[in-house]
Amino acid sequence: MSSTWGTNIELSIFGESHGQAIGIVIGHLPAGIKLDMEDIQKNMKRRAPGQNKMSTPRKETDEVHIMSGVLDGITTGAPLCAMIYNSNQHSKDYSLLKECMRPGHSDYPAYIKYKGFHDVRGGGHFSGRLTAPIVFAGSIARQILRQKGIVIGAHIQSIKDIKDKRFPIHMSHEEMDDLLKQQYPTLNKDIFEKMQTEIEKARMNQDSVGGTIECMVLNVPAGLGNPFFDSIESHLSSLLFSIPAVKSVSFGLGEDITKLYGHQSNDCYYFDEGQVKTKTNHNGGIIGGISNGMPIVLTVGIKPTPSISQTQETINVKTQENVELNITGRHDPCIVPRAVVVVESMVALGILDMMNQ
Amino acid sequence: MSSTWGTNIELSIFGESHGQAIGIVIGHLPAGIKLDMEDIQKNMKRRAPGQNKMSTPRKETDEVHIMSGVLDGITTGAPLCAMIYNSNQHSKDYSLLKECMRPGHSDYPAYIKYKGFHDVRGGGHFSGRLTAPIVFAGSIARQILRQKGIVIGAHIQSIKDIKDKRFPIHMSHEEMDDLLKQQYPTLNKDIFEKMQTEIEKARMNQDSVGGTIECMVLNVPAGLGNPFFDSIESHLSSLLFSIPAVKSVSFGLGEDITKLYGHQSNDCYYFDEGQVKTKTNHNGGIIGGISNGMPIVLTVGIKPTPSISQTQETINVKTQENVELNITGRHDPCIVPRAVVVVESMVALGILDMMNQ
Amino acid sequence: MSSTWGTNIELSIFGESHGQAIGIVIGHLPAGIKLDMEDIQKNMKRRAPGQNKMSTPRKETDEVHIMSGVLDGITTGAPLCAMIYNSNQHSKDYSLLKECMRPGHSDYPAYIKYKGFHDVRGGGHFSGRLTAPIVFAGSIARQILRQKGIVIGAHIQSIKDIKDKRFPIHMSHEEMDDLLKQQYPTLNKDIFEKMQTEIEKARMNQDSVGGTIECMVLNVPAGLGNPFFDSIESHLSSLLFSIPAVKSVSFGLGEDITKLYGHQSNDCYYFDEGQVKTKTNHNGGIIGGISNGMPIVLTVGIKPTPSISQTQETINVKTQENVELNITGRHDPCIVPRAVVVVESMVALGILDMMNQ
Amino acid sequence: MSSTWGTNIELSIFGESHGQAIGIVIGHLPAGIKLDMEDIQKNMKRRAPGQNKMSTPRKETDEVHIMSGVLDGITTGAPLCAMIYNSNQHSKDYSLLKECMRPGHSDYPAYIKYKGFHDVRGGGHFSGRLTAPIVFAGSIARQILRQKGIVIGAHIQSIKDIKDKRFPIHMSHEEMDDLLKQQYPTLNKDIFEKMQTEIEKARMNQDSVGGTIECMVLNVPAGLGNPFFDSIESHLSSLLFSIPAVKSVSFGLGEDITKLYGHQSNDCYYFDEGQVKTKTNHNGGIIGGISNGMPIVLTVGIKPTPSISQTQETINVKTQENVELNITGRHDPCIVPRAVVVVESMVALGILDMMNQ
Repeated sequence: MSSTWGTNIELSIFGESHGQAIGIVIGHLPAGIKLDMEDIQKNMKRRAPGQNKMSTPRKETDEVHIMSGVLDGITTGAPLCAMIYNSNQHSKDYSLLKECMRPGHSDYPAYIKYKGFHDVRGGGHFSGRLTAPIVFAGSIARQILRQKGIVIGAHIQSIKDIKDKRFPIHMSHEEMDDLLKQQYPTLNKDIFEKMQTEIEKARMNQDSVGGTIECMVLNVPAGLGNPFFDSIESHLSSLLFSIPAVKSVSFGLGEDITKLYGHQSNDCYYFDEGQVKTKTNHNGGIIGGISNGMPIVLTVGIKPTPSISQTQETINVKTQENVELNITGRHDPCIVPRAVVVVESMVALGILDMMNQ
Repeated sequence: MSSTWGTNIELSIFGESHGQAIGIVIGHLPAGIKLDMEDIQKNMKRRAPGQNKMSTPRKETDEVHIMSGVLDGITTGAPLCAMIYNSNQHSKDYSLLKECMRPGHSDYPAYIKYKGFHDVRGGGHFSGRLTAPIVFAGSIARQILRQKGIVIGAHIQSIKDIKDKRFPIHMSHEEMDDLLKQQYPTLNKDIFEKMQTEIEKARMNQDSVGGTIECMVLNVPAGLGNPFFDSIESHLSSLLFSIPAVKSVSFGLGEDITKLYGHQSNDCYYFDEGQVKTKTNHNGGIIGGISNGMPIVLTVGIKPTPSISQTQETINVKTQENVELNITGRHDPCIVPRAVVVVESMVALGILDMMNQ
Repeated sequence: MSSTWGTNIELSIFGESHGQAIGIVIGHLPAGIKLDMEDIQKNMKRRAPGQNKMSTPRKETDEVHIMSGVLDGITTGAPLCAMIYNSNQHSKDYSLLKECMRPGHSDYPAYIKYKGFHDVRGGGHFSGRLTAPIVFAGSIARQILRQKGIVIGAHIQSIKDIKDKRFPIHMSHEEMDDLLKQQYPTLNKDIFEKMQTEIEKARMNQDSVGGTIECMVLNVPAGLGNPFFDSIESHLSSLLFSIPAVKSVSFGLGEDITKLYGHQSNDCYYFDEGQVKTKTNHNGGIIGGISNGMPIVLTVGIKPTPSISQTQETINVKTQENVELNITGRHDPCIVPRAVVVVESMVALGILDMMNQ
Repeated sequence: MSSTWGTNIELSIFGESHGQAIGIVIGHLPAGIKLDMEDIQKNMKRRAPGQNKMSTPRKETDEVHIMSGVLDGITTGAPLCAMIYNSNQHSKDYSLLKECMRPGHSDYPAYIKYKGFHDVRGGGHFSGRLTAPIVFAGSIARQILRQKGIVIGAHIQSIKDIKDKRFPIHMSHEEMDDLLKQQYPTLNKDIFEKMQTEIEKARMNQDSVGGTIECMVLNVPAGLGNPFFDSIESHLSSLLFSIPAVKSVSFGLGEDITKLYGHQSNDCYYFDEGQVKTKTNHNGGIIGGISNGMPIVLTVGIKPTPSISQTQETINVKTQENVELNITGRHDPCIVPRAVVVVESMVALGILDMMNQ
């Protein structure tokens, strides 16, 4: 399935970057949830572009219009459709992009799959802009989870070679909330300046950089998830890999766990005042596909933004020739900072979907 | 869903390590496929334990009994149920494992989820032994894919710190077949000896090691997959993370792509005698969730086997005390070599499921 | 799942009768379909209310706004979101309906399920108005099916005790098109006058009537469908029973087949100029869950409109008392005529979903 | 999907009438359910053939072997695989059935769908024998539901033209249990003799008859189900139509409700000692797709057994000629009595699947 996801919470996403609107239908939300619109807008703003020179100067208000499923600010239990009208589309000529396939973009595979009928303007349905409705839906999921004591946060783990610290084994809700107050959350608060320098360097070179985001979910009860096909890892990874530009998903130490010995990678249990904990959390709170009560920790890798202004070699599918391509326009030299809240949102939706089972 | 998966091909897995039998039901196989049982047994043997000192000395015949869906060696189109009877169970006392939670194993999360009613003998339903039916199903998928010209192979990319080369950008079917003829496939044929030394060192220390497996799918046509929730990455990762002990899944260069500049990570297209190719394949043949016609490349990270004979600290859930645990019995000091064919099988099932759409 | 449906075609429905808008997201439509908007509007009009005294005088334009998935009138392959803004809501006081449960309406079960938070205005998400987006989606499905030679039509089989003829064993596409040109299609053209009299009688008594609709699908190839859980009957019935007020679904002769002997109910095959046909079609073109190449025939039973102006006994959930209820407002004395195109649309969506498998 | 079903409870069915075995995998059963095997065998026996001259003389022990998911008689939470080995297959020549398509059977549609590779022996995967694993699974579902106070029963509502009474508006659990103690449950205990005479008459004429079964579910709480695509009716009908030979499914009065006026078909609510009830139950306990707390009532129509010994006209797909066919062998002149427990089982599985949501 391309456009729908979920069992207990259902997501159906739609829209194109330069079409009428983008949006999402969220099914099976519980009735009676009072939406905190201020909190939603705060999250929307974390993702929104145009806030500084690290992101595309395109200004989008990203104002969400709720078309159904909410009455007097409270969910009714009926499907919630939220829409964001597209306002700031450039009316520029996109005919070049119908022929010249941008490297690193979905242009060519989409051209084959949709036989040339897809909307190429601004990336169409493949645009990162489609993550705005995800953040909206994720914000609602987070509000529901927070009522159950579950809190989610993420930080920029790396930009190119510049690395932040990893999450500590435990964090309080307050510490997590403090982290998320940073416009660009890093655990080592000084590191973001270096990251910014790296991004700026790329921007000056008409180039781009990528990075990684580490996300932690506090207070997930033990016993969530399943062996095999609906392991927590399977469930969350199917969502995380649907974020454009994500190329890796890992849990706990991720690939680094493969460099340990078994006596190191096994997280030993102990009773801490009657509560079961592990001394380390190399497995990221998940064993056998099921949560063990420790924080769930995961990392996603995001490739450098494919939109760069440098001249690139590619093909023209109409003339069937090798060509050179120059893309002008509004580009993010690095989308990692804006993707932090998107990762948090997807994780929130995935956890909520599993909670209801 | 825990036990079923798939849209076009349906998988339903069942069984416990020391129960009556393990098996799988495969739905929606096309009718008229003549099964190559010799090829299937060859793959089963690649996964089977007891073949050398790197793996558990438990001898299992892993003989597959087809209960339905095949007549005169040819698929009928009805669901195919394949079973492997368990023959070599030890009748030892498992009561210790009902109380003392092995670190790194599913014992504790399963204890919570199933309220103590799960089968702990040999890991029960969580046992790596459940991958045997996956290899059976994957072998059939590979036979169907091969008829469409699609060939899948994998190699041990690393054991602990010892690394093999990465796959080259192109390989012929013959080169891939040659690779798979190696009992423990590595691209650099000399490297496996070093890996073996590392494994042996762990075994002597009653310890274990993990590693990574790189898998490549040749000849997938462009246009397979979807944006968002059913991207190729989402689809395959949900399967790959259901393999016990897998902690990371990545595509193309994986996390390493985050260290490149955009002008490096973008795979530039060109016409090669009328065929569209890319000069590099850093994105692993997938852009925007859809195949671009280049080989699909992915890597999974497998943690060190949690079963180690060293004394470990843990909890006793009955006495509610912190205890020390010694696990005796048959352990693989490293499951990575046996997991190569499991990864190939999951990828085959995932690709076949998408092909039929 | 409440709000989504489908495997190859995905439907996600949303909206409330008196909310901002109602709509549908249709996923996995093939790219490159040129939409015939005139044909769509013709079908929308067949369902629309306010056209005569048999239906509610509420005037709704039912103008469809396509928000995504279509460019220059042609499907792009991305999810198609279609919305109908609600324009003609009465601002009347609905507080009575929050307390007094209308008999025959979803009020009470919804009150329990949604804990009183659901939107009661005009039936909210349960309103028959939600079938408008279904007709839109079904019209697109019919256009795609017609390109494959498959044509769908239905007629009013009965209103209360007044019965039309059953479909003949064969009909040409032209005959079916002629049938659908009737505002209220009946095979015996004279019978609708009698039906109308029955409806008018009910209306004069502040009462309502129901009826049955028979639907036929011409030219479905043999071999569509599955044994067991995805039989054609299972597949279509899950859609048909989601139409508000449908209480029965049957195939071929339906319950009447239970009154025959086996030698009568078995449809005997014969070659008709090389083509396989059956002499009768008592099984409605489906045997063992799979099409046999004969027209698919099915019948749905629709209960009398629950909205009647007569005084009715019921409960007040707030005061916990038995009360008498008078509902005023705009009611259809019979929704069967407007439901004909809804049944056709659901069948079209169901067949298309199975075609793509 | 053909072979799997369900969201909270997962079913995967397999096997052919004359293959090695038939069986079912049931996923997501709660852990800790102590199976009442005696009760299961009692239900299995209600379905089993060979008990009198009304059913096929084929003797099958239908002994269930549990391969997984149960330890010491208690469910473990892992998928439960249950198998019934086929023991009494006739080794007769089935080559005629590969060419001559039996009217009323799945032979011809299956021949087209599976290109002639399907197993024709005894109906293969289409055999009514596949309902044996359904009864096993349904029996477990009933045990779980009974713990929640929900009880399910059905009776033969009609055989050909001979009709039993309908269920009364209320029944106690004891009355329902008494009903099910009858080998062939009818509410009017005298009516079964007349039905038997009708069946015997058909048998003597080498013919067959069908009938209807009415099923009632006591004590379903209000608020179960959903509007639209997962209405209780949609959910249950997808299961009921997967029972071979079922051609109609209806709820409450079914088609008869279409002959009432609205003031009759609306079930009026009242408080009965604080409990909400309706004075009539014409809607079968379901309004707007959701339960209203009254008993759920439904009726299925089963066509006459297609296997009859009379000479029938049909086609030979090999010679491409019209031919006459005589089928000898073991036939049920009426399968309705044996289908009662199958209907109850499917309903139990459907209700349990919805309960867990």
